[in-house]
Amino acid sequence: MSVEKASVIFKNIDILNDRFEVERNMFVGVKGGVIDYIGATCPEAKYDSEIYGSGKLLSPGFFNLHSHAAMTILRGYAENLPLHSWLHDKIFPFEARLIEQDVYNGVMLAAAEMLRFGTVSFSDMYMFGSATARAVYESGIKCNLSVPVFCFSESDEKNMPAHKELNEFMSEFKDAENITFEIAVHGEYTSTERAVRATAEYAKEKGLGAHIHLSETKKEHEECKARHGKTPAKYFADAGLFDVRTTAAHCVYVENYDLDILKEYAVSPALNPASNMKLASGFAPVPKMIEKGINICLGTDGAASSNNLNMQKDLYLLSIIYKAAFEDAAAIKYTDCLKAATINGAVAQDRLDTGVIKQGFRADLRMIDTDCPNMFPTTDIASNLVYALSGGENVLTMVDGRILYHNYEYYSIDIEKVKYEAEGSVRRIISELK
Amino acid sequence: MSVEKASVIFKNIDILNDRFEVERNMFVGVKGGVIDYIGATCPEAKYDSEIYGSGKLLSPGFFNLHSHAAMTILRGYAENLPLHSWLHDKIFPFEARLIEQDVYNGVMLAAAEMLRFGTVSFSDMYMFGSATARAVYESGIKCNLSVPVFCFSESDEKNMPAHKELNEFMSEFKDAENITFEIAVHGEYTSTERAVRATAEYAKEKGLGAHIHLSETKKEHEECKARHGKTPAKYFADAGLFDVRTTAAHCVYVENYDLDILKEYAVSPALNPASNMKLASGFAPVPKMIEKGINICLGTDGAASSNNLNMQKDLYLLSIIYKAAFEDAAAIKYTDCLKAATINGAVAQDRLDTGVIKQGFRADLRMIDTDCPNMFPTTDIASNLVYALSGGENVLTMVDGRILYHNYEYYSIDIEKVKYEAEGSVRRIISELK
Repeated sequence: MSVEKASVIFKNIDILNDRFEVERNMFVGVKGGVIDYIGATCPEAKYDSEIYGSGKLLSPGFFNLHSHAAMTILRGYAENLPLHSWLHDKIFPFEARLIEQDVYNGVMLAAAEMLRFGTVSFSDMYMFGSATARAVYESGIKCNLSVPVFCFSESDEKNMPAHKELNEFMSEFKDAENITFEIAVHGEYTSTERAVRATAEYAKEKGLGAHIHLSETKKEHEECKARHGKTPAKYFADAGLFDVRTTAAHCVYVENYDLDILKEYAVSPALNPASNMKLASGFAPVPKMIEKGINICLGTDGAASSNNLNMQKDLYLLSIIYKAAFEDAAAIKYTDCLKAATINGAVAQDRLDTGVIKQGFRADLRMIDTDCPNMFPTTDIASNLVYALSGGENVLTMVDGRILYHNYEYYSIDIEKVKYEAEGSVRRIISELK
Repeated sequence: MSVEKASVIFKNIDILNDRFEVERNMFVGVKGGVIDYIGATCPEAKYDSEIYGSGKLLSPGFFNLHSHAAMTILRGYAENLPLHSWLHDKIFPFEARLIEQDVYNGVMLAAAEMLRFGTVSFSDMYMFGSATARAVYESGIKCNLSVPVFCFSESDEKNMPAHKELNEFMSEFKDAENITFEIAVHGEYTSTERAVRATAEYAKEKGLGAHIHLSETKKEHEECKARHGKTPAKYFADAGLFDVRTTAAHCVYVENYDLDILKEYAVSPALNPASNMKLASGFAPVPKMIEKGINICLGTDGAASSNNLNMQKDLYLLSIIYKAAFEDAAAIKYTDCLKAATINGAVAQDRLDTGVIKQGFRADLRMIDTDCPNMFPTTDIASNLVYALSGGENVLTMVDGRILYHNYEYYSIDIEKVKYEAEGSVRRIISELK
């Protein structure tokens, strides 16, 4: 990471404050990676540069709590197929051809797309984790990076290769301040119970959080009940995994009883509305989650299923689709959605010094051009941020006080090289598959 | 409309062709309002200007088949409310304060937003139609403009003020080439049966198409059945309205039997997924409509319910939400969605010389910046156009060969004045309501 931390003052800028209300014409100072001033008047302290904020709004950046970033290179590769054929005929054969460099190329492209649309941090689960770590380290975006456990056999139970792999690159990337390591259990149906228990013990011993897929499809949810006589949520809780901080992706088929478990163990559901719609998985019981005070977060999932990593789209989907699915126009407030996409994600990642615009907090920010017709009138700017933006209005993304994206320019990514190399990976794999 | 028709050649540009496939590195010439050349080599004919198309894609513009454009000024005015309270406590009292100039201001803002996001034509239904006509005429965007019949009493049945109003401004705006006039029946529940029959006769006599709301909510659909012993679709068919070309907005609760009626009378449903989600109206049976070969179109509805007029969002919603709602990941193809947002809309508007990129057709186009990370890799560019764009990538909108929007500049709209005056209308009305 070669980009310096900026010393910069945003002048006369609207902000989405720590109560998720819009304050107009404010001054926000950033120095040493943190927000060191917020006020209605210009501070006396000097900054090396200034950004004039007229017609702009400063918001906490997005936290994308569930992704398989490398899968950007599968974007557009398999469309209009039923789930089983999509996975077995297209995705798995493609993935079998991936080499480490492909994963690096895919994650660099993902980082470019996420920074373009205002994401400052993401949680990832994929193979070739060290390639992901390298791309994350270079691009400067934050990441909770996990290595997924897949364990079908007794010999794997003894070895636990995912634990070993994680040990190795926790040591290799120990200086990467933007990376938090986690252990993942891919899913209930892809590991033995002994492996889940061993992983829970491993996470406790190392002080790590966990990332899992939970009740994404009806099939997976019902098969677990048939196999173990309990729901996936109860299964993971009983296996001790929820004793560590856990992000549970999807949670589409969780039952009322499961919601109590998620609440009790402070598990954070990472909702993936785009992916759940496109793969016809279904509608997570989001209104009930909110009612119970569960820490709902938001994710894009991988681009093979959701096709883009624009969190604005998922924010928008979160704000409208559950109203229809649960037949209640008041089922979810836009402020709940803004929180899900920012502070709740930061909390789920155990990043307790970010996710809001607050003095002393990390400068993980996006700046939005609000001087566009879709943001007028200004009757309720916070509502416009959820319902009227396209995402393309994002003009600046800052992570830990470093400007990584500004007005179509990248400062940590060679975007032409990234596009070229990602394209090359895809072409090679497709030609190999022919 | 002071903007001249351009004489311009797009060089080395990707195009979404008339089969809705992407062709790369093409040349497209526009002169006298029409596409006069498409080819893989540069034409010999001379053009006054050229646009270099590297990293860009030329697509038919969007056709927004259901809107209440003036309602942009209600954007963000009433959020997080149950439908009844939203309508009666907020929307109706606000609308009661509207004057003609407010409607003009709202439509100008809507036109700016639609042009920003690549819409070339829309179908509108609202009060103060002459203010809408004036804004449409000045902005240069195409519009199928209707005056809605609301008729509860016998005296209104004799007068039919909506017919009179339409007669008046068909004459006032007879030279406005971009406007096609239609008659509207707001809904089954807001007019007497005699008024619907009289409107059907009036439309036949004048050779006009019709625009209606149809089975948007369960309440409306079921109450019609209780009142008339038939569904709204059957009711309108029996009253003779479907004998004229009709656009039927929403169609959420249409039954199998109704779909046969829509097919038989070539009624075009204008789907409004954003509005239907946000107001918790429900999910239109889109897969069945496609299966029956019904001419599905797409609309944004008004910004009071859908908050934005970005057709890219509705295109995206159309492409994913019905897969989840009807539990079939193959329920709708992205090519069906591209057609719904373009050519199908043009057909529904009876604009048979536009909606595709084809020689001799009207130059109603949008140009998209595809050199952005969310459009890579280029494995399936047409898929990326539906699933990966945000809408903000639109850089040029051309209507009848006139460049009305290009790189954040408007050529027929004074955007600063429009934003200022729309804001003024809202402030006045809100202060009156206090």
